[in-house]
Amino acid sequence: MNIIVDAMGGDNAPLEIIKGSLDAKNEYGVDITLVGDKAVIEKCAKENDVDISSMELVHASEVIATDEDADSVLKKKPDSSLAVAMRLLSEGKGDALVSAGNSGAICVGGTLIVKRVKGVKRPGFAPILPHFNGGCFMLIDAGANLEARPETLVQYAVMASAYMEKVMKVDNPRVALANVGAESHKGGELQRTTYELLEKSDLNFIGNVEGRDLPSGACDVYVCDGYAGNLVLKTYEGVAKSMLKKVKELFSKNAKTKLAAALIMKDLKAMAAQFDYNEYGGAPIMGTAKPVFKAHGSSKAKTFKNAIRLTKDYVEADVISQIAEAVKKK
Amino acid sequence: MNIIVDAMGGDNAPLEIIKGSLDAKNEYGVDITLVGDKAVIEKCAKENDVDISSMELVHASEVIATDEDADSVLKKKPDSSLAVAMRLLSEGKGDALVSAGNSGAICVGGTLIVKRVKGVKRPGFAPILPHFNGGCFMLIDAGANLEARPETLVQYAVMASAYMEKVMKVDNPRVALANVGAESHKGGELQRTTYELLEKSDLNFIGNVEGRDLPSGACDVYVCDGYAGNLVLKTYEGVAKSMLKKVKELFSKNAKTKLAAALIMKDLKAMAAQFDYNEYGGAPIMGTAKPVFKAHGSSKAKTFKNAIRLTKDYVEADVISQIAEAVKKK
Repeated sequence: MNIIVDAMGGDNAPLEIIKGSLDAKNEYGVDITLVGDKAVIEKCAKENDVDISSMELVHASEVIATDEDADSVLKKKPDSSLAVAMRLLSEGKGDALVSAGNSGAICVGGTLIVKRVKGVKRPGFAPILPHFNGGCFMLIDAGANLEARPETLVQYAVMASAYMEKVMKVDNPRVALANVGAESHKGGELQRTTYELLEKSDLNFIGNVEGRDLPSGACDVYVCDGYAGNLVLKTYEGVAKSMLKKVKELFSKNAKTKLAAALIMKDLKAMAAQFDYNEYGGAPIMGTAKPVFKAHGSSKAKTFKNAIRLTKDYVEADVISQIAEAVKKK
Repeated sequence: MNIIVDAMGGDNAPLEIIKGSLDAKNEYGVDITLVGDKAVIEKCAKENDVDISSMELVHASEVIATDEDADSVLKKKPDSSLAVAMRLLSEGKGDALVSAGNSGAICVGGTLIVKRVKGVKRPGFAPILPHFNGGCFMLIDAGANLEARPETLVQYAVMASAYMEKVMKVDNPRVALANVGAESHKGGELQRTTYELLEKSDLNFIGNVEGRDLPSGACDVYVCDGYAGNLVLKTYEGVAKSMLKKVKELFSKNAKTKLAAALIMKDLKAMAAQFDYNEYGGAPIMGTAKPVFKAHGSSKAKTFKNAIRLTKDYVEADVISQIAEAVKKK
């Protein structure tokens, strides 16, 4: 299996990306194709004693910044590491692609360069989030398409359910619709129509779930339009992060609180790890013709290695054939 | 000033509601009209030694449950405590209304029985949320109207800004648009058009703010449609609550962690209080012709008392005249 890596994407590129890629290669036995500015990557590798000789290196002269327009991956920067990587994937020079770069550009490139699974209307950006009981859930869509139609939401549910079952090994994933109340009549027309369609589907649809029930693990798949989903994703991560920071501040206040910290350090760290996205690694773009995986923008080597592991599982579980079958049936 | 209280609304009604109302009466010198089942309220007051003789009591035979349809306040339960209270307010028998009951019914009743300020298209449900630096912000709309047009979002911003300035004493409130990225072109058509309108307005518009920046106090007013807003509200509260619970569990694990807890208890409690909605009390419905205030559903006496204080401030600051003026100008 060959994984194509956008070596220039993310806050810690290229160093942490090439380190994580090498670790993944050694640990999981996958081949890696690094894409990015050759001179920059080779210099960085040399300076940091990372031996990249076992990985293929494909040159790309440009880089798409995190805050750039999503569609710069198309016409504005065709020689960016991401665009070149996407084209390599689309041409069959690899089995999957991983990037820690610009989420929007990854969604656009995935949809228009790698292209969609036949029958899929719109790929969805689907981050995996930890809940507070040790497990995780998939949120789809977190911003690939800001608006959605009921049929799109149902396809999101089908795709995410296949991923959670095959890659995350969740038995019969519980699919929930993001809504403002539990009752079936809640929400606007979009939610009510989607509710009816999900009820008729083969999925394990458990009904509407409100934002407050996400942390306790109320569902395995959480479906909504990309605008609301993006707000939920960032609020979820933002509140958890701020709270952990607050707790840390509390413990470093004075001698007494520092003593308390020492007593409880091990448990605190375990708790923090539970919410650490580094353990989860990122978000697949669901619905592309080949696996495209977005690693967290602030990925360090470990996160990126995990992202490659999840991508390898994504390829091996053949989720995409399953999605193609499921979508055909509709 | 006379505050009309829905004595039957909320998880702890009527006991905590009548206790909180009495405390508010004594502390803030407001008159109170309790609305609800006379026999039930009188029995509850007697059994719990609450002297309600100084408050007016208006009978209403029905109660709207938390999970009931929002429009039951209109035709299905015209003699519910909430519907009767709304009519009293609309007929000028009081200056404002407070209820800890069904949020949807409060929004519907506020809009259709109390009616709107002239020129206001749609009232918004506007909870006040604590951020993690000790202050708070107003989220509007958190579910009164699931869909919104740009003009509605701008009106939300105008109303919330007036409230934050006059009632919460925030100087020149920073108004932000809920969006998926900071740049002005981000979002769908709704967000882009709203952005332009807000930029042209007299408001202190600071641009788009993402969900992740809410806990650190990035804005004083956070504007979005009711569907996304409701998800943000509940995700925000849900994650904070789950996290606090997790920290508490951590401390009660064994003798060592309990010792740590003892050392840090005071600071922990202070932190928990910072996120305690009991300190904030609830959410005004912005845009009704007279102040309608929703207290938190699980209000105890203290929360309800605070809700009455905020409502008193809402009346005294004459926010509604200000809204009427601002809306006329457009």
